[in-house]
Amino acid sequence: MKTLARELKAILGQAGVIDDPTRLVPYESDGLALYATRPELVLLPRDTDQAARAMAVLARHGTPVVARGAGTGLAGGATPVENGVLISTARMRDILEVDPEDRFARVQAGVVNTQLSEVCRGHGLMYAPDPSSQMACTIGGNVANNSGGPHCFKYGATSRHVLGLVLVTHAGEVIDLSGPWVDPQGLDLVGLFVGSEGTFGLATEVTVKLVPRPPVVEVLLAIFTELEAACDAVSEIIAARLQPSALEILDRLTIEAVEQSVFAAGYPKEAEAVLLIELEGVETEVSGSQQEISAILNKHGVLSTRSARDASERRDLWAGRKGAFGAMGRIAPDLYVADAVVPRTKLRALVRRTVEICRERNLKLANVFHAGDGNLHPNICYDRRDPDEVRRVLEAGRLILETCVEAGGSLTGEHGVGLEKREEMEIAFAPEDLETMCRVRDAWDPDRRMNPGKLLPMRACMELRTPSPRA
Amino acid sequence: MKTLARELKAILGQAGVIDDPTRLVPYESDGLALYATRPELVLLPRDTDQAARAMAVLARHGTPVVARGAGTGLAGGATPVENGVLISTARMRDILEVDPEDRFARVQAGVVNTQLSEVCRGHGLMYAPDPSSQMACTIGGNVANNSGGPHCFKYGATSRHVLGLVLVTHAGEVIDLSGPWVDPQGLDLVGLFVGSEGTFGLATEVTVKLVPRPPVVEVLLAIFTELEAACDAVSEIIAARLQPSALEILDRLTIEAVEQSVFAAGYPKEAEAVLLIELEGVETEVSGSQQEISAILNKHGVLSTRSARDASERRDLWAGRKGAFGAMGRIAPDLYVADAVVPRTKLRALVRRTVEICRERNLKLANVFHAGDGNLHPNICYDRRDPDEVRRVLEAGRLILETCVEAGGSLTGEHGVGLEKREEMEIAFAPEDLETMCRVRDAWDPDRRMNPGKLLPMRACMELRTPSPRA
Repeated sequence: MKTLARELKAILGQAGVIDDPTRLVPYESDGLALYATRPELVLLPRDTDQAARAMAVLARHGTPVVARGAGTGLAGGATPVENGVLISTARMRDILEVDPEDRFARVQAGVVNTQLSEVCRGHGLMYAPDPSSQMACTIGGNVANNSGGPHCFKYGATSRHVLGLVLVTHAGEVIDLSGPWVDPQGLDLVGLFVGSEGTFGLATEVTVKLVPRPPVVEVLLAIFTELEAACDAVSEIIAARLQPSALEILDRLTIEAVEQSVFAAGYPKEAEAVLLIELEGVETEVSGSQQEISAILNKHGVLSTRSARDASERRDLWAGRKGAFGAMGRIAPDLYVADAVVPRTKLRALVRRTVEICRERNLKLANVFHAGDGNLHPNICYDRRDPDEVRRVLEAGRLILETCVEAGGSLTGEHGVGLEKREEMEIAFAPEDLETMCRVRDAWDPDRRMNPGKLLPMRACMELRTPSPRA
Repeated sequence: MKTLARELKAILGQAGVIDDPTRLVPYESDGLALYATRPELVLLPRDTDQAARAMAVLARHGTPVVARGAGTGLAGGATPVENGVLISTARMRDILEVDPEDRFARVQAGVVNTQLSEVCRGHGLMYAPDPSSQMACTIGGNVANNSGGPHCFKYGATSRHVLGLVLVTHAGEVIDLSGPWVDPQGLDLVGLFVGSEGTFGLATEVTVKLVPRPPVVEVLLAIFTELEAACDAVSEIIAARLQPSALEILDRLTIEAVEQSVFAAGYPKEAEAVLLIELEGVETEVSGSQQEISAILNKHGVLSTRSARDASERRDLWAGRKGAFGAMGRIAPDLYVADAVVPRTKLRALVRRTVEICRERNLKLANVFHAGDGNLHPNICYDRRDPDEVRRVLEAGRLILETCVEAGGSLTGEHGVGLEKREEMEIAFAPEDLETMCRVRDAWDPDRRMNPGKLLPMRACMELRTPSPRA
């Protein structure tokens, strides 16, 4: 490892290689604190060229490599591996190009999500995907996980917004697919790479689509005395073909946590659910939709509705939602955020089942969810120092996922599979599906050194037959 | 081949295997008539099970396989190969499931594009991608080519609408990825398969997203006396952040052809360009956009504008566009349809360059294009019995593609690469990009029996180094 560090310092400089054990500690985990492994080294390349040269050295040494953006991931995708190095994109923060006419931007992978939208604001444009962690998380991390966010109900997740990539392969080769193509041509390698969770290689530059900021944005905040009524209102809004840009629900325990925190939003005591609805578009469209939605909310017994049109009032209404995860720190020291997606028509039934699963195990459950997408985020609040509680949390997590997949849902809406749901992939996929995924992964990284042990279940890859000989 | 035919008839029945040479003739080409090869057999499975059993037999015999939908493709993707069989989806036309609540449909691969939208009409839903050949082309063919159409400016091409697939691999294994997932989980095999042009395996069932039909649809038809003015109007409509659902331009020669055909639309004699604009949405939104667009059209010297709101009038305005390809048969017996995409801001300059390239070679060029997407369709009208003209057509086609790629465009917007643009992939991609594509393809079909010789340039695949040994 000493020789390796020396070789890498020659490429990245002293400041580009962390080998001091105490400075390695913050890199042991990502947002899924249940898992921790100390990396041998942390590398901080400044650009594609440095990253490629470093990767070539790592290939020569046969060293496993894990990439890390801001480490805000919730599924352990950036957890280091034994005897491996971590490549952080923290020094790759340049916005390389903004083209307001053709509406794209080319950025280094370490650019922070909100930073990009801020830079484009003057052109009346924005980068649409907005994960809750958008103040910290990076575009490269978003690419790895195909990240979502509240506004992805309207705009689609990251894969809909990535036009091009510059990649460094396991061997240190550079693949330049950065052209902002309107349409993919040939095999869609860019689309395939998005969501591959670092198992194919390292993305160093990302070309993204920018979208126009809407002329009018209105936020409605509706208070319900029953969670089910809020779910039903969401189903009816969608059935009526209204197209809000976001539909978010917070449940009782989340509301309590928010009210006790600095994000206190003044929700009434009897609130069992808060439904946040954002509408975008031209003036008349927003007003028209607003009226139709109000009628639906009333039909489902809404207690009260507030609305906001100016930026600062909108921020107030969103504050409770955006601060929800932070506020849950008041309930218990640790938080397990599940990420299942269910058909929107089954939202009500599956939220209820989730509540039961946690109640049966005496677990504190706070629900915050992207209701429009059917993306549940059951947040189980727990204390990782209590081994029995940890066991019950993991059991409930698995049961919730199984229930959602059985109902026609997905294992993950936006957090990725990572370490956390690797084995659960066997619930969602048949062996031949997983085998095909392993083959595709091997096409990129035949030595399996890139983020090993993530995304795909161990068994499926171990059992993969060797490919048939070429004709 | 006789043994093979006998084995296949045992699975597919007499009617499921065509081996009579005269009945094989119609299958020699797809829409790119420049290339023709007679298949040894044509297979017509009825479902996934029959297709899988047939594919297993073909694997045992080592027979190359080409899949064919309706054969309307324009890039030779369904051209048979020497000593190979063709699998047609013509008997796989069942709509298996329509779920209006969760807004998806599950269909056999041979279902015709418009048939699906017709079936969903009663639910107020539609399948959005609408290739010009939509009366004939199949959903399976659309998947292979990631097909587009006029409305893909708003809705995105096929890949945005495919939620799941059932696939038969080269070996006859079935991979069921048909769950209508809101979000991809694990590696996005479905997204990767879309646009793989039959080189990965055979899609037998497709799960697609359905979208709500808009409440109001208005079509504007604007006549210009200069093609450049129409291009400029399109650029300004987009820059103004208006979002029409379609923006189509027809040029002079196209207009002449249309006017002489059964699709005659009554365009004035002095028309040098026709711009079709479709607006969708709620009433107030459509009216508002209409006013803003009229102002832009006037600014660019529009000669006249007609508009239509009811279905039959709209159909009249669209008739010229939809009939354009057919009408060109009046200009010359053969038509070479290029399919390059350019950045929308360079539309005007590249249209002009395209016109020059054809004029220099004394070729008749008719332009019909998805202007909103920057998707040029230069249609070169020629006679394939004239070898020198054929040579000039191919030269012009290649030069147009090179020019567009140089300007930051793509080789293909919606027709795919097929046979036609296989070698041109080397213009757009570096050797390491193509090598990665070959590796990914080999992960699906290590024997390279599925649609061999299509999509990827021969050289790149031949030169592919053997994968490094697994660690």
